[in-house]
Amino acid sequence: MTLTPHFDYAQTLGRKARTASAQMAKAQAAGRNVTLRKLAALLRSSAQALQIDNARDLERARQAGLAAPMLDRLKLTPQAIETCAQGCEQLAAMPDVIGEIIGLRQQPSGIRVGQMRVPIGVFGMIFESRPNVTIEAASLSIKSGNACILRGGSEAIESNKALALLVQQALTESGLPTDAVQLVQVTDRELVGQLITMPDYVDLIIPRGGKSLIERISREATVPVIKHLDGNCHVYVDDPCDIEMAIRVADNAKTQKYSPCNAAESLLVARSVAPAFLPLIGRVYADKGVQMRCDPQALDLLSQLSDGCCQLATEQDWYEEYLAPIISIKLVDDVGQAIDHINRCSSHHTDVIITRDHMHAQVFLREVDSASVMVNASTRFADGFEYGLGAEIGISTDKFHARGPVGIEGLTSLKYVVLGNGEVKS
Amino acid sequence: MTLTPHFDYAQTLGRKARTASAQMAKAQAAGRNVTLRKLAALLRSSAQALQIDNARDLERARQAGLAAPMLDRLKLTPQAIETCAQGCEQLAAMPDVIGEIIGLRQQPSGIRVGQMRVPIGVFGMIFESRPNVTIEAASLSIKSGNACILRGGSEAIESNKALALLVQQALTESGLPTDAVQLVQVTDRELVGQLITMPDYVDLIIPRGGKSLIERISREATVPVIKHLDGNCHVYVDDPCDIEMAIRVADNAKTQKYSPCNAAESLLVARSVAPAFLPLIGRVYADKGVQMRCDPQALDLLSQLSDGCCQLATEQDWYEEYLAPIISIKLVDDVGQAIDHINRCSSHHTDVIITRDHMHAQVFLREVDSASVMVNASTRFADGFEYGLGAEIGISTDKFHARGPVGIEGLTSLKYVVLGNGEVKS
Repeated sequence: MTLTPHFDYAQTLGRKARTASAQMAKAQAAGRNVTLRKLAALLRSSAQALQIDNARDLERARQAGLAAPMLDRLKLTPQAIETCAQGCEQLAAMPDVIGEIIGLRQQPSGIRVGQMRVPIGVFGMIFESRPNVTIEAASLSIKSGNACILRGGSEAIESNKALALLVQQALTESGLPTDAVQLVQVTDRELVGQLITMPDYVDLIIPRGGKSLIERISREATVPVIKHLDGNCHVYVDDPCDIEMAIRVADNAKTQKYSPCNAAESLLVARSVAPAFLPLIGRVYADKGVQMRCDPQALDLLSQLSDGCCQLATEQDWYEEYLAPIISIKLVDDVGQAIDHINRCSSHHTDVIITRDHMHAQVFLREVDSASVMVNASTRFADGFEYGLGAEIGISTDKFHARGPVGIEGLTSLKYVVLGNGEVKS
Repeated sequence: MTLTPHFDYAQTLGRKARTASAQMAKAQAAGRNVTLRKLAALLRSSAQALQIDNARDLERARQAGLAAPMLDRLKLTPQAIETCAQGCEQLAAMPDVIGEIIGLRQQPSGIRVGQMRVPIGVFGMIFESRPNVTIEAASLSIKSGNACILRGGSEAIESNKALALLVQQALTESGLPTDAVQLVQVTDRELVGQLITMPDYVDLIIPRGGKSLIERISREATVPVIKHLDGNCHVYVDDPCDIEMAIRVADNAKTQKYSPCNAAESLLVARSVAPAFLPLIGRVYADKGVQMRCDPQALDLLSQLSDGCCQLATEQDWYEEYLAPIISIKLVDDVGQAIDHINRCSSHHTDVIITRDHMHAQVFLREVDSASVMVNASTRFADGFEYGLGAEIGISTDKFHARGPVGIEGLTSLKYVVLGNGEVKS
C-alpha cells in the first residue's frame, strides 16, 4: 500500500471503528433503540442550529455556481430534519433482527443447527451532496449493531459535521461507543482510496452517487461493494391487460418524478394491444412534454400526435437511463420477446408487466433477471420504505449478498450456530 | 484486458455458459432432478471405464513423483464413485428452492412484496486434484439451476474429462443444455486469470485448494469470490463443564482426522478447571502422538507427561493451522477472555465452547465472530452434510453473501417480487 498523507488518518478511523463494532455487536437492542430516539430528539431541538450550519454550505455552493437541483439536494429544510427524526423513531420502533436464530433444526447426528443474524461489522459509506444521508446511514448502522465510517461530499461538509456531532452525542449519552459513527473530516478523493482498501478494518463499502463514482469504487475496492449503477426500468404492457390500468401505471412510472432511479425509461407494448393503448398513453406523455423515442411501428401508431414529441429511436436508446422527460417505446410480439429484450437491455433494477394473464405474470416474475420484478404496479414503488424495510441504505443491482433495496438485513450476516450435547464425529 | 492465447477460448466458455444459464433458470425442478438421477446411473454403469481413465492420471502422477497423500486424493475408487452417485440421488430427492417466494407481505400502499429465490447465473469453480469435486460441483450447479465452468487440476485431467462427459450426457439426454456444465480442457494458470475477470459471463468464483491459490484468486478476481482460507478452530473448555464430555469432544475435534479444515488447532481451558481437565486430555493426546504447544501455566500442569510431547508455545502458535498432530494449549481466566482470544487469533471458521453454564453458552454464541459457533459439539461437524444442506460447494470464512458451509442456497440470489392491482405512487 502506498503511504499517502491520509494513510494514518484512515488507519485510525478504521481501528476505532473496528473496536466500536465489537461493542455495538454486544449492545442490547433496547440500548440501540434508546440512542435512536435520543437522536430524533436532538435533531428536533437542534433544527435551528442545523439550518445555520447548512446555510454556510448553501452559501458556499451558490458562490461556486452549483446548479439549482444540486442546491435543492443540499438544503436541510425544517421538513427534511423532521423527516430524519421520524425515520430514527420508526427504526427504533421496528423489531430487532440482531441475534435472531433462523431454522434451528435437529440433524441425524443429534446436533441442532441454525443460523444467527449478526452485524456485518464495519461499513464505509461514500455519498454526495444530500446531508440527510448522514442520518439515514448512521441510524441504520446503529439499528443493525454495526459501526460505520461516513464520507460525505465536500459541498455538505458543515451540515454533515453538525449532524455527525448530534449522532455522536446520542451515542455517548446512551452509553454506546462514540466511534460507532465517524464522519471523515477531510473530503479529498485520496482518503476514499484508503477507505476502500482496508479489509482489516472495513467489511463493506456502500457508494451512493453518480455512476463514475460508483464505477471507480467498484474497480478499486478490495472489500465487497454494494453497488447500484443504472436504473433503466421497463414497463411492459401485455395482451390481455386492463388498458386503463396500463395507462395509469405507465404514466406514473414515467412522469411522477423524472430523476429517481426507479422511474421508467422504456415502454414495451404487445403488438396486438398497441393500437388500443399507444395513442392514449402517447397523448398523456405529449401533454406532459415527455419526448418519445420509438421503433418504426410505434412511431406509426403515434403519428396523430403533434410534431416534435416523437422521434425514431436509435439502438442506444434501449439502454439509456434518461432521468428526464424522455421514454423509449418498442413493440414486441409477446411476453417472451419482452423478457428477452428486458434481460438484454435493462440494468436489472426494476421491471414491470401490466397483464391480466396469470401465466404471463408467472413467467415474467420468474424469468426477468432484475432486482425487483413487478406485476401491475408502478416501478416507482421500488424502494426500502415501500417494501416495508423501514429504511434503505441503497439499492443493489448486483446479485450477490443483497439485491434490490437494502435495509437492515443487508447490513447483517448469518453465522451458523450448533447446539450439542457432547456429540462427536464418528 | 490483455489478449492472451486463451482469451477466445475463455470468452467462448463464458458465452456458452451464459446462454445455458438462462435455459437452466427456466427449467422445471422435475427436469433437473431427472438429470441428477440419470447422472447417478451413468456413474455406476461407467465405474470401470472411469477407473481406467483415472489409472492414467495416477500413473502420470506416480511418475511425476507425487506424494502418497496426493495420490490418495487423486484416486477414484469404486467406493468414491458410488458416493458421488449417491450424492446426486440425495440432491435429486431434496426439495427444490428455486422459485420459492419468501415473506410475501401486504404493504400500506396495497402492493404485496416478497422475495423469490433464483439461480445466481454462472459460477466458475477452480479446484485441485480430487476428481470427485467435478461431480459435486456439477450436481449442485444442476440442482440450483445454474450453469458452471469447472477448472480442475492438471493431475486429474483425464478423470475430470471422463466425468464431465458423463455429466454432459446426462444433461443432453434429459433435455437440458449440454453447456450447463463445462470442463475447461486446458490446465494452465493463464486461463484461470481469464475466467476470474469476465464479469459479463461469470457471476461468482469458488476456488477450492491451497491457500496460495485462493489468495491469488481473491486478489485478481473482478467478480465476487466465495473464499475459505484457514481453519484455525478452537475448543474452549469452560468452568463449569462436564469433564468427560470435554475430553471426548477435545479428543475428537483434534484427532478424529488431522487434515480437514474443521479439525481443532487450539485448546483454551478455563484456569479453574485446568487442573482437573488438562492432565487427562494431555494423556489422551500424548498416547496418540499429538504434540502440545503450551503457554507456561498449561505446560506446568502437563509436566507429568513424558518428555517431548509438550513444548512452550510461541506467539505464532496461536494463529497456526497445523493440519497435523499438533495442538496449541492456553489457559484463560473466563469465557470473556476466551472470546477475546478467539476473535483475535481464530480464522473465523469454527469455534466451540464446552460448558454447563447457560449464560456462558449464550454469550459465546453471540460474540464469537466465526462462521460456525458451537456449544458442546465437535468442530468436525462443520460441513454441509452434517448441517443438512445436502451437499457443500465450499466453506466460506467471509461474512458476505454466504458464511460457513455453502450449499444450494449459497448459489442462489433473492430478487424482490411485487404483486399489485394497478397501484401507483402518489
